[in-house]
Amino acid sequence: MHKNRLEAFSDGVLAIAITIMVLELKAPSHGSSFNDLSGLLPNFGAYVLSFLYIGIYWNNHHHMLHTVKHVGAGMLWHNLHLLFWLSLFPVSTAWAGHHPDQPVPVAVYGFVLAMAGLAYFLLQQSIIAHQGKNSLLAEAVGSDWKGKLCVVLYFAAVLLAFVEPWFSNAIYLGVALLWVVPDRRIERTLGRHQNE
Amino acid sequence: MHKNRLEAFSDGVLAIAITIMVLELKAPSHGSSFNDLSGLLPNFGAYVLSFLYIGIYWNNHHHMLHTVKHVGAGMLWHNLHLLFWLSLFPVSTAWAGHHPDQPVPVAVYGFVLAMAGLAYFLLQQSIIAHQGKNSLLAEAVGSDWKGKLCVVLYFAAVLLAFVEPWFSNAIYLGVALLWVVPDRRIERTLGRHQNE
Amino acid sequence: MHKNRLEAFSDGVLAIAITIMVLELKAPSHGSSFNDLSGLLPNFGAYVLSFLYIGIYWNNHHHMLHTVKHVGAGMLWHNLHLLFWLSLFPVSTAWAGHHPDQPVPVAVYGFVLAMAGLAYFLLQQSIIAHQGKNSLLAEAVGSDWKGKLCVVLYFAAVLLAFVEPWFSNAIYLGVALLWVVPDRRIERTLGRHQNE
Amino acid sequence: MHKNRLEAFSDGVLAIAITIMVLELKAPSHGSSFNDLSGLLPNFGAYVLSFLYIGIYWNNHHHMLHTVKHVGAGMLWHNLHLLFWLSLFPVSTAWAGHHPDQPVPVAVYGFVLAMAGLAYFLLQQSIIAHQGKNSLLAEAVGSDWKGKLCVVLYFAAVLLAFVEPWFSNAIYLGVALLWVVPDRRIERTLGRHQNE
Repeated sequence: MHKNRLEAFSDGVLAIAITIMVLELKAPSHGSSFNDLSGLLPNFGAYVLSFLYIGIYWNNHHHMLHTVKHVGAGMLWHNLHLLFWLSLFPVSTAWAGHHPDQPVPVAVYGFVLAMAGLAYFLLQQSIIAHQGKNSLLAEAVGSDWKGKLCVVLYFAAVLLAFVEPWFSNAIYLGVALLWVVPDRRIERTLGRHQNE
Repeated sequence: MHKNRLEAFSDGVLAIAITIMVLELKAPSHGSSFNDLSGLLPNFGAYVLSFLYIGIYWNNHHHMLHTVKHVGAGMLWHNLHLLFWLSLFPVSTAWAGHHPDQPVPVAVYGFVLAMAGLAYFLLQQSIIAHQGKNSLLAEAVGSDWKGKLCVVLYFAAVLLAFVEPWFSNAIYLGVALLWVVPDRRIERTLGRHQNE
Repeated sequence: MHKNRLEAFSDGVLAIAITIMVLELKAPSHGSSFNDLSGLLPNFGAYVLSFLYIGIYWNNHHHMLHTVKHVGAGMLWHNLHLLFWLSLFPVSTAWAGHHPDQPVPVAVYGFVLAMAGLAYFLLQQSIIAHQGKNSLLAEAVGSDWKGKLCVVLYFAAVLLAFVEPWFSNAIYLGVALLWVVPDRRIERTLGRHQNE
Repeated sequence: MHKNRLEAFSDGVLAIAITIMVLELKAPSHGSSFNDLSGLLPNFGAYVLSFLYIGIYWNNHHHMLHTVKHVGAGMLWHNLHLLFWLSLFPVSTAWAGHHPDQPVPVAVYGFVLAMAGLAYFLLQQSIIAHQGKNSLLAEAVGSDWKGKLCVVLYFAAVLLAFVEPWFSNAIYLGVALLWVVPDRRIERTLGRHQNE
């Protein structure tokens, strides 16, 4: 099985998820003032955050698959599992965007983030298991404290949402910014190997 | 005609179908409690099931086209026929998700599954007819009791929905799980041929 | 400029148009009986027809681009013009599906068909102009009485809709069936050239 | 990193944005007269304009990436930034289409155009910075007075919307027409180099 079609399908799902999220940003059809616009602000903020997250996933997914040559059945299901949680971003974003100060929507948003993070981690492990411990990806990722820490932070934010939802929102934003700095580990390891 | 564009178009339709289904999972815009969330549970269950089915179709479609070299006009129409029934998943999923205990929506869900299964079977037969009886796909699929059985089970579930909708739902889930175990027949036959 | 990206973009727009049309087939969220289902029948019929048309366009577009090597700026705009009219299918389908017996929605449906047919014809002419009169496509298409006739029929149906909308609907269906028989002209001409 | 996947993802997002915009053109489900249709006219006009803009962006993006060989991390984020603003087209189009004579929606439409223009300019600069001042793109673009002027015009239109929204709408249309004439600078420079 070629990885091209896996990449194309994943790109398709991500491109659609990132684009249909905007359908939840409903233009106020009966109002045309600044007030009507400012009512959209929390939804807009949630949209920006989720756009960033899907952009990050697309970017990292891209780097990770760069190291893959052969696609096994397990990897295929792990990838679908990741896409499942990412496909829920539009609905969790819409709900949290409507109620950014309410525990349940904010916790649900974090839960979807946490499960997507976990699914990404499992996909990564399944690729490493397939390639062997000395593979490029295994070396680049190392113990992957960054990936693990994020999943822990998401789950912590889910619990924190019942204390103060804005703490959770701050964590979601903070983790996103942590990843905007692109994951140079794979590029760096690749570079090292080419120099040897 | 190249198969690349057929694959790309099919992947596109499947990626979109799998993603827009989530638009029917409407975030409760006026509520923000666990109760509002639990009202979405049947829809969420239907979403998971249909996501699984489209994932399975994508996976199997992928394997099947792997054996194809030349795309004829008949195959193209059979493929479009399959995409037609798969494109109805979002609407049948939304209806059955709203009424998982009602005969008609559950029967309609099963009917769409059955027709998609039938369309897949016809596509497969048209490829085999094109490649000849001794082709790789013909050998891998054999008498395809699994594909035929599933279509029969779907139609049985359509009828059963008028007795007890939950029996039908159990069949839909059971058949899906039967397919999550990936269809190794093609891979196995391919492997055998390479070893000879 | 490579034709790959033109094909990919066109396939993307067609795959999305064909899939989001289904969003207009709204599952009746408050009813779960056969009656609720039968209320969807006209919309379903319109959906099937438009699905067929987009499938036909995808198929023919595919064959036509097969003969193209270099993509000029004019061709690019003609292609975008075609995609514009095809992108209106979901909205014209939804309106005609709600009112299959009313002159204006049925006429609008036909107008969109006619303009798409015209845009396809113009795209074809721009490719022939680019390739020269002795090109493969010019020979395969000939005077293209079929394409021209269809555009005339669509415009006739637009006018007829104000006499009897069902006459127009019959024309839309009839022309679609005329095209389901795939356009073998390009394949045949190609085959002849390879045999020489 | 290959540019193919960047192109594919961008094409996906643009194809979806251009297609889902049509979902905001809601078919009047309870009316079937010319009056119901004419009520859609402002929305239709906004749709045509935004379709044109996304077509222009797709076209120019295509030409620009033609000159790129290696994709760096910065370029990737600049590209995502551009896609972000383009993804807002459906919502800004829907709002301005509902209220083409109101200052705030018309200004918001222009603001999204301006930010997309700015993001495109930044992406272009990041490519030139990566390729060096003597690169093909740098030479083709020159001081890019056209790109800069448009961003200035968009921002001017944003302010003008509070004086007379129709002035702004005229600017949006005028700038679009300025770009429909395809940007031949890259093609011309390419041609010159091949002749040397």
